[in-house]
Amino acid sequence: MDTTVDKAAFGARRASYSMRALSSEAKNKALIRIAEALEMNRDIIEEANITDIERSKIEGLAYPLLKRLEFSGVKLDAAIKGIREMAELPDPVGSTTYQCDLDEGLELYRVTCPLGVIGVIFESRPDALVQISALCLKSSNAVILKGGSEADNTNKVLTGIISDAACEMDIPNGWITLLRTRSDVGELLKQDRNVDLIIPRGSNDFVSMIMKNTNIPVLGHADGVCHVYIDKYADPEIAVRVVIDGKTQYPAVCNAVETVLVHKDAASLVLPLLDKAFNENNVQVYGCEKTAEKLGCQLVSDWHTEYLDLKVSLKIVGSIDDATDHINTYGSGHTESIVTNDRRSAEFFMSVVDSGNVFWNCSTRFSDGYRYGFGAEVGVSTSKVHARGPVGLDGLVTYKYKLFGNGNIVGDYSSGKKDFDHIKGNKACPFDR
Amino acid sequence: MDTTVDKAAFGARRASYSMRALSSEAKNKALIRIAEALEMNRDIIEEANITDIERSKIEGLAYPLLKRLEFSGVKLDAAIKGIREMAELPDPVGSTTYQCDLDEGLELYRVTCPLGVIGVIFESRPDALVQISALCLKSSNAVILKGGSEADNTNKVLTGIISDAACEMDIPNGWITLLRTRSDVGELLKQDRNVDLIIPRGSNDFVSMIMKNTNIPVLGHADGVCHVYIDKYADPEIAVRVVIDGKTQYPAVCNAVETVLVHKDAASLVLPLLDKAFNENNVQVYGCEKTAEKLGCQLVSDWHTEYLDLKVSLKIVGSIDDATDHINTYGSGHTESIVTNDRRSAEFFMSVVDSGNVFWNCSTRFSDGYRYGFGAEVGVSTSKVHARGPVGLDGLVTYKYKLFGNGNIVGDYSSGKKDFDHIKGNKACPFDR
Repeated sequence: MDTTVDKAAFGARRASYSMRALSSEAKNKALIRIAEALEMNRDIIEEANITDIERSKIEGLAYPLLKRLEFSGVKLDAAIKGIREMAELPDPVGSTTYQCDLDEGLELYRVTCPLGVIGVIFESRPDALVQISALCLKSSNAVILKGGSEADNTNKVLTGIISDAACEMDIPNGWITLLRTRSDVGELLKQDRNVDLIIPRGSNDFVSMIMKNTNIPVLGHADGVCHVYIDKYADPEIAVRVVIDGKTQYPAVCNAVETVLVHKDAASLVLPLLDKAFNENNVQVYGCEKTAEKLGCQLVSDWHTEYLDLKVSLKIVGSIDDATDHINTYGSGHTESIVTNDRRSAEFFMSVVDSGNVFWNCSTRFSDGYRYGFGAEVGVSTSKVHARGPVGLDGLVTYKYKLFGNGNIVGDYSSGKKDFDHIKGNKACPFDR
Repeated sequence: MDTTVDKAAFGARRASYSMRALSSEAKNKALIRIAEALEMNRDIIEEANITDIERSKIEGLAYPLLKRLEFSGVKLDAAIKGIREMAELPDPVGSTTYQCDLDEGLELYRVTCPLGVIGVIFESRPDALVQISALCLKSSNAVILKGGSEADNTNKVLTGIISDAACEMDIPNGWITLLRTRSDVGELLKQDRNVDLIIPRGSNDFVSMIMKNTNIPVLGHADGVCHVYIDKYADPEIAVRVVIDGKTQYPAVCNAVETVLVHKDAASLVLPLLDKAFNENNVQVYGCEKTAEKLGCQLVSDWHTEYLDLKVSLKIVGSIDDATDHINTYGSGHTESIVTNDRRSAEFFMSVVDSGNVFWNCSTRFSDGYRYGFGAEVGVSTSKVHARGPVGLDGLVTYKYKLFGNGNIVGDYSSGKKDFDHIKGNKACPFDR
């Protein structure tokens, strides 16, 4: 028997076909209508949100989660502003990324197109619902959302407003659906026929659980164990600046530094400076045996540790090879930075380290879609296929090959009657959907 | 306890790190050395191949598989020529695909880089071993191969020659490994930590089995149920040409036509022409009820059927929407073609059909890496993430973000001391590895 989730996924798949034909203008008008509708219905949204907060307080939800659940005032303003800005961004659908005239009058174009149906599973934050559904609409994808039960009222009201506003602008029915029961998560993860990509938003454990339990591709990252390597040829002042910014500027995020590796020849100069700076910034140091001996700090228990706190692991390494080996063994493929004045060290580090983001003389905290200039961020991926690193709207599209002919057949080429030209060019595809 | 496969995968991962630093020149020289070594050792290869063929004959291997197992003479020539041509192709590693100056002196580059370790599982054909290992070397990836037991001697000799030749040219040890026992397949599919992509080469059932039994991304396709839709506004002559070429030019391949859909308003004109052409080409027709009535053919039993033979399914549809619905329901996302003189029909069809290749007035048989001008083909993918459609060397690379700074920290931007510029440009990354 079909479950609610089967039906939602099938409905989203149907809607996704019609969405493929939407023009950029139609999508942008719908986004603006959604922004207006959220603005007009702020009272209803804030009321629903208060209900959720009050109930969650009674149920004893932890304070940080209560803060995340809050969706009113400036947070609501920011979400609405975000949608208006999204309407201004270029359409990720319809770009020609490869073009080749196979022969005269036989023209090939590779054109970006929507993935189809995106499944989004998020904890707490209702702003994630608003942002991700707008991103899906902008990229012509249907979306199935499953939020946390603590935000159920808010999510329900938000989905209704977004769905109604989009419907007024002729966005196909069924493009957005909210699932509301816990068992729906498991069902959603089984929809590999009708869901093309899963985006989880939440804690590391939550994301890991999703990744392990589905055959659908997942766009996300579990842990972020980011490293700074201070090379033999490092500028000590830059080393301290980059480490302290990476560790202390916002310790709870995935691109914060967790482990600092110091080349043995730099240790005597850099270690005391780092120790002083860590002390001044209330960062607790856990070291390798040599570091512990020099600084009198505690020993590291596990080099995989993601502290997400004012704590850091510190290790002295014998060579740049030891540093890249350590990172490739214990890292999570997120973001790593080398501090050095030696170009060859930087080149070696940036090629050999197998992470989505490799930096030279700057803070790991820069790895972020907005800072990268994407205009919008879908998430950060530590996968190597589809999308890697910070992911913008490009992460919600794939591509198809469009071939334009006039009765052309392969028989003419295999018989030798005709030959391929293969003239590569930069023409844009005549059809932009 | 570590298995042989654990060790091979770990060794391949280690080798893959060193391979990241290889220059284009070093890789191309090694490819040419491999071509020379295969040339020099043809006697040994052909002798090993004869042993495999003789043994397989005794074991009663079917004739088509014996043909595929054969690896000598012109087949060996073609494989060697293929490697020399690969050396001439552009390096897929080191291309800058996004560039943005985040601020003065803070430069971001997105650069293509190898995936790391590729697992290749293939049936019978030893030429697959030669081609795929050369493709992996060209793209700086390590490779773990598992061939069929019927080709064991040939595969062993080939791997030895390739490995020794590459070693002479300083390609890191461990970059190529051949697994030889059947149980190794299951073990290989579990190596999600050390294998980044699986490429299966073989029958549909074989590929489906691989796809269902691994969490590692798979580049491949199981079935290819390709369609031609003959629109209300079709040129009947083009319709017949395209259908007959797609069905008969090489019926056993995945991009051959399996189902023809005819708009009801075109049926009275086109159906008799098609019927005549099918008869002349010994194609057996299976129809929908209306078609069976008109042509007196048998009924289709399953619209999902991939005949891979001189057989075709034929259906009369009420509208272009019915046609795209049918394709999106029963197709395999491979290749579909519309025959029409109406631009709007073509645009609608090519946007709404959710397949990797969508064609207008030409044969489905064109969907192929060589015909697309890629120079080399890694395979055909019906997945939507990573690589879709025919896949060239690009399918063996991913990308990383490289950020070049001079002590830049996020604190300066969050405090308002500095602002991002986000000036997008076309500069190539200073480091090309």
